[in-house]
Amino acid sequence: CSNLPEPEYVVDDTTYDRVCSETLDALSDYFDELTENAAHITGSDVVYGDGVLSVNLGPVNGMYVINRQKPNKQIWLSSPVSGPKRFDYIVMPGEANGRWVYKHTGVTLHEMLQEEIAQIFREQPVNFLKLP
Amino acid sequence: CSNLPEPEYVVDDTTYDRVCSETLDALSDYFDELTENAAHITGSDVVYGDGVLSVNLGPVNGMYVINRQKPNKQIWLSSPVSGPKRFDYIVMPGEANGRWVYKHTGVTLHEMLQEEIAQIFREQPVNFLKLP
Repeated sequence: CSNLPEPEYVVDDTTYDRVCSETLDALSDYFDELTENAAHITGSDVVYGDGVLSVNLGPVNGMYVINRQKPNKQIWLSSPVSGPKRFDYIVMPGEANGRWVYKHTGVTLHEMLQEEIAQIFREQPVNFLKLP
Repeated sequence: CSNLPEPEYVVDDTTYDRVCSETLDALSDYFDELTENAAHITGSDVVYGDGVLSVNLGPVNGMYVINRQKPNKQIWLSSPVSGPKRFDYIVMPGEANGRWVYKHTGVTLHEMLQEEIAQIFREQPVNFLKLP
């Protein structure tokens, strides 16, 4: 039995800014690609700027908003399918890159998007897990 | 004791689109005004488009996102102070205009913003309750 504090793999501000931008940039590009190829989803629109990525999938599917939340060093997701979630960037010891993790369940941002977006974009292959 | 269903004051699609735009337009203008006058809040930025209003209040205060969620006829709020909430537009019988209400507590969107934003913008008067 150890009284050592639980390890916290929290990144510094500079790293947070960098990985947060990389993540949102890559998601923005990928949503652009997906919506351009999705003829059956009308009224879609992807807008990204100042740390906020909004993905409007039309009046039936609704709006995803994924945004930086710098005071907490988190990314917040608002999903029309599953509601809101907050993700922390966790780097496990021995790993070069971290992942955005929803701490309550351990699911990652990209796993969640994969699950939900693949259901919406049924007519094309969807692979969020390949993104940085 | 009555078995009548509980009344639902749900608006139609056209009304939703109109009041949702009016609300977000007015909030966008008001956040513009507040941030322009707030010399002590650095790095702030207000961006509004396609049903998403993002209000970045800098690295210390964080980011508010207020967005349309058309499939539910709701407005969703993501607050760096209190987290996420969903608001329904409720018109009470005999009243001309409705209000965006968080059903779990009855608090309105504008009451919530008044409470939180007045705390952040302490150096100027804040009045969200005057907005449409």
